[in-house]
Amino acid sequence: MSDDTPTAIQSIEWRGDHVRIIDQTYLPKRKVYSDIRDMGRMWEAIKKLRIRGAPAIGIAAGYGFYMGIKELPESSFQSFWVEVQRVEEYLQSARPTAVNLEWVINRIKTTMQAHKDKPISKIKEIALETARTIHDEDKRICKKIGENGVKLVKKNSNILTHCNTGSLATGQYGTALSVIFHAHKAGKKVSVWVTETRPLMQGARLTAWELKQAEIPMHLITDSAAGLLMQRGEVDMVIVGADRVAPNGDTANKIGTYPLAVVAKENDIPFYVAIPLSTIDNNIDHGDDIEIEEREGEEITSFNGSQIAPKKTEAYNPAYDITPNKYITGFVTEKGIIEPPFDKNFEKLFDE
Amino acid sequence: MSDDTPTAIQSIEWRGDHVRIIDQTYLPKRKVYSDIRDMGRMWEAIKKLRIRGAPAIGIAAGYGFYMGIKELPESSFQSFWVEVQRVEEYLQSARPTAVNLEWVINRIKTTMQAHKDKPISKIKEIALETARTIHDEDKRICKKIGENGVKLVKKNSNILTHCNTGSLATGQYGTALSVIFHAHKAGKKVSVWVTETRPLMQGARLTAWELKQAEIPMHLITDSAAGLLMQRGEVDMVIVGADRVAPNGDTANKIGTYPLAVVAKENDIPFYVAIPLSTIDNNIDHGDDIEIEEREGEEITSFNGSQIAPKKTEAYNPAYDITPNKYITGFVTEKGIIEPPFDKNFEKLFDE
Repeated sequence: MSDDTPTAIQSIEWRGDHVRIIDQTYLPKRKVYSDIRDMGRMWEAIKKLRIRGAPAIGIAAGYGFYMGIKELPESSFQSFWVEVQRVEEYLQSARPTAVNLEWVINRIKTTMQAHKDKPISKIKEIALETARTIHDEDKRICKKIGENGVKLVKKNSNILTHCNTGSLATGQYGTALSVIFHAHKAGKKVSVWVTETRPLMQGARLTAWELKQAEIPMHLITDSAAGLLMQRGEVDMVIVGADRVAPNGDTANKIGTYPLAVVAKENDIPFYVAIPLSTIDNNIDHGDDIEIEEREGEEITSFNGSQIAPKKTEAYNPAYDITPNKYITGFVTEKGIIEPPFDKNFEKLFDE
Repeated sequence: MSDDTPTAIQSIEWRGDHVRIIDQTYLPKRKVYSDIRDMGRMWEAIKKLRIRGAPAIGIAAGYGFYMGIKELPESSFQSFWVEVQRVEEYLQSARPTAVNLEWVINRIKTTMQAHKDKPISKIKEIALETARTIHDEDKRICKKIGENGVKLVKKNSNILTHCNTGSLATGQYGTALSVIFHAHKAGKKVSVWVTETRPLMQGARLTAWELKQAEIPMHLITDSAAGLLMQRGEVDMVIVGADRVAPNGDTANKIGTYPLAVVAKENDIPFYVAIPLSTIDNNIDHGDDIEIEEREGEEITSFNGSQIAPKKTEAYNPAYDITPNKYITGFVTEKGIIEPPFDKNFEKLFDE
């Protein structure tokens, strides 16, 4: 798989003075590019899932952060910094559960502070450079995750994945899908069960699209059908991404991940989570500390603007669930495969 | 809840010379009645889920069977009987997994054979009478199931249910929903988590509609969100219906039932299956003997005629899964609650 294969598409790109994204709400029907020139538009794009997937959200937020600060008055660092914090809070409110968003902005802020004695115009440039560096790093990290995961994949195996974790969700390659892409490239002859991923259908719309572009054999299933397939021996491995991982390995990921993990364990099927190490949130202890984003009930009661449920039906629409560490066989990271006990083994990595 | 409450709607009704059904493919938007006057239309109505739910399919098949035989030549019983078998095979092909369909037709045939010495015109009348008796019995049985299940429901509890098992799915009241209706009527102050039930959305379209008609508090969720709710202690009991139950308790029900049962057990939540005893198939030994109906992939790749997945995406769409008996706390039947060991306790019932 060379960089010019269709799998290596760019979901987000910095173009001199603005960002160009593929608006994922139009996929797979149409490939619509959208040019984003201010922070408000970026907030909307993140909130409405035009750009989505933990790492891509982080990259987008980095550029959005720069757009938010670039026109700020340059009179004093102190008053500039007050406004910088407001920009940060505003962007964070678009997806409160996305640790990558927080991580990217914190990293840019730390770099800015290290240069606080420079002219503010220069500090703004440094912010943009840092955002671009983070984007480039993400591409390299995703490639590494894919390469590291290949050894877990048996030849001729059936892999089940949930939601979308591919090039669309990251700088390039993806996390869980990067493992699948690289296993395919290495001649492992994999076949993929793609869960449609209700309510927003990221599996049906995005993962199916990416796998078809890469010509990897796949079948789409409802989220509910995964259990039957696991019970019948039709799944050799489950691999998913994550939105936030606690230092003990408890994992917040797309709603439906937890039941997949429980049923996988019940059927002795390895369950892997592929993440860049930046997904680990060292400010928390375990999964209970993770706030679950609740999204609008209309995502369930309607589809494509047409009502499914009776009018005024109340719906509960959590975006994530928490998979306790005991259901997870291992994490695939840019630094290799991490096995239990996760708390100790993650710590070792961060100490290196 | 008296018989004139909206929950006691008639999904299927014999009207002298034809059947009137509520065409469930239009719900919840419109309440469309459809008059069915021949077997071919009944086959289509069963196949296309215009009438659905195990007991309702049986009742419909009984009337459809009568429509299929009423015009047959009356020259000799033998040649009549050959055609009767063809009618049976044809109707069975509409929903091969529906044991109630088979059961109803077998019962009508047995009654007909007991009267084989009578004029064929008389035997045809007997077939209709039997179909009507089966319909009346179903209403009584469903009421009994509901009444028997009430004692399992704790006051102020949250009940999770899957698919549709209410008045729409049966002669009246339903199976799992009958328990919920009767618990509500008994003042148990229940609240219901309704899984939308992909791909055909019977939960979102039908169960939500029936519960709203009965003014029972409810929230709609995606099938994937049930895990999070169970993990967080928001579910006190799961109750579902079944399409076919093996004598050992292994249960075929709507796809997604098996993962619900596994996650319920993992979280120590009671998992009940509400069935008329006719759902038990004594011709098989266990769940592996049950054929899984595979439906068209288009039910997943499209929604309301609009394409979701990329064109030419292959989908795997099993209609049912099998929940092994070890995940089931008990069966709620018209003869009471059946606890494990199911094989022995079912046998006792049939011996009574």
